[in-house]
Amino acid sequence: MKIGLDILGGDYAPKSTILGAIAAQKELSEDQRIVLFGNEQETKQLIAEAGGDPALFDYVHAPDTIGMGEHPTKAITQKPNSSITKGFEALKNKEIDSFASAGNTGAMLVGSMFSVKTIPGVMRPAIAAIVPKLKSGTGLLLDVGANADCKPEMLNQFAILGSLFSEYVYGVSNPKVGLLNIGEEEEKGNLLTTSTYPILKQNTKINFVGNAEGRDLFSDCADVYVCDGYTGNVVLKLAETFYAVTLKKGFKDDFFDRFNYERYGGSPILGVNAPVLIGHGISTPEAIKNMVLLSKDMVESGIIDKIKSAFN
Amino acid sequence: MKIGLDILGGDYAPKSTILGAIAAQKELSEDQRIVLFGNEQETKQLIAEAGGDPALFDYVHAPDTIGMGEHPTKAITQKPNSSITKGFEALKNKEIDSFASAGNTGAMLVGSMFSVKTIPGVMRPAIAAIVPKLKSGTGLLLDVGANADCKPEMLNQFAILGSLFSEYVYGVSNPKVGLLNIGEEEEKGNLLTTSTYPILKQNTKINFVGNAEGRDLFSDCADVYVCDGYTGNVVLKLAETFYAVTLKKGFKDDFFDRFNYERYGGSPILGVNAPVLIGHGISTPEAIKNMVLLSKDMVESGIIDKIKSAFN
Repeated sequence: MKIGLDILGGDYAPKSTILGAIAAQKELSEDQRIVLFGNEQETKQLIAEAGGDPALFDYVHAPDTIGMGEHPTKAITQKPNSSITKGFEALKNKEIDSFASAGNTGAMLVGSMFSVKTIPGVMRPAIAAIVPKLKSGTGLLLDVGANADCKPEMLNQFAILGSLFSEYVYGVSNPKVGLLNIGEEEEKGNLLTTSTYPILKQNTKINFVGNAEGRDLFSDCADVYVCDGYTGNVVLKLAETFYAVTLKKGFKDDFFDRFNYERYGGSPILGVNAPVLIGHGISTPEAIKNMVLLSKDMVESGIIDKIKSAFN
Repeated sequence: MKIGLDILGGDYAPKSTILGAIAAQKELSEDQRIVLFGNEQETKQLIAEAGGDPALFDYVHAPDTIGMGEHPTKAITQKPNSSITKGFEALKNKEIDSFASAGNTGAMLVGSMFSVKTIPGVMRPAIAAIVPKLKSGTGLLLDVGANADCKPEMLNQFAILGSLFSEYVYGVSNPKVGLLNIGEEEEKGNLLTTSTYPILKQNTKINFVGNAEGRDLFSDCADVYVCDGYTGNVVLKLAETFYAVTLKKGFKDDFFDRFNYERYGGSPILGVNAPVLIGHGISTPEAIKNMVLLSKDMVESGIIDKIKSAFN
């Protein structure tokens, strides 16, 4: 297995990505290799300086960086030597089995759709975020930003994508799907959710449990919450803020700790033909390590083939 | 001044509403009277039993209750003797200056639109929720549920309504308006927000400061946050859940304390021809007390006339 990692992505790159890669490598077996995309010589030097062994990694020389503020499509096409462009090239050519970066989210999304492409039958890929449950375990919220405007059928597809991820990557049996909404009853909601409800209800591929309200997001109400990318993104950033406030206030608690994005490492782009993960811009070494390990889990789970079969 | 209060509204009514009314009355001046809508004899008896003086209140006999699950429009028309229907009748006839209830939100919304009616020029009234700021002070989020689907011009009107409330009821000078969105740049967002941005930018009646993300909601970024009622409702319920979790975990902190809805008492319906307040279903006596006091503040502020002038 070859796990691709962008060494130049993220606010604290390359230091944070190097340290994360070294930590992740220690948890991999011999046949699992991390392929680093960045300036090859510099990367090797930084690994050695950090006490790591450069020989334990593979490299693809990619000296150029796509900045956080750059226009995704322009950057992808105009920077052929950037770590993200090189990463997707390798992913497309099956030189790597997965690709992860804490860099420009838009470039990761566009790059995945340009290179490995959307799985036939999937209208639009979605970005899934992991949300902790109050009791224990993890739920999934999607979409959190890939599609600001959604049609009912897209939400229906997100439900399938999320269910497969929950089942095969997180091992949740028959995952429950909730529609993020503003009331429990079927007729409650906006145009999108009231149109989506009957479609989800009739979908035999998922275990739809009905509407879930903002207050249910951390309950055992569902394992997969679907909503449009605008709402999901607002919700995600609000939740992150609450976590940040509890940290700042010095509140220590297992539940709040589980809001720490570092634990999950990254958000998968679901619906493209390969495991692709986006890390938080502020990714620490711990986050990078867990993003690499989640990449490995995604490859091992065979999630892409499961999605392909479901949309066949 | 006559402040109308529904004695039968809320999960803990009439006990909670009676105790709240008694507490509020102590903070009013002689010319400010609370008018109680409910079973008159029972209400007087309960006030006496709770150690209050029934003579300090006015009464309108309304023995019927609209339940939390009842269909708003049907209930309003089919229950002429319900406390909410009687309340709006009195409000329409100017026998009271404001009306507040912790009962059926939909019935309160429909009731206000049927009785005192929407202010000419206002497309749709909005429900505003009070959000605490991390540093100090209070922000306003609207709409939080009256309008699940919104047009750009509605969000523009919410910005005006919220600004007037912030300025005249909370005393915020030149309140800043933020558009709840998923990116800082003007071109970011969904169809609704990208269409709303240029309208807000050109609106000379407000102090538009641009997009605000989920993470900005508790910052000093803005005093008034506008969004569609679906998103606002999801956000509000999520925020309430976080507050509930910190309470449950025993975290004591001024910022989290300020999430306590009891402090604010109720959410104003803005855009109708009289001050109308909706309380949380689980309203405690403290919440009821503060809802009565906020009713008084709204009447004193002359907010309705300010709104009428703005939309004239």
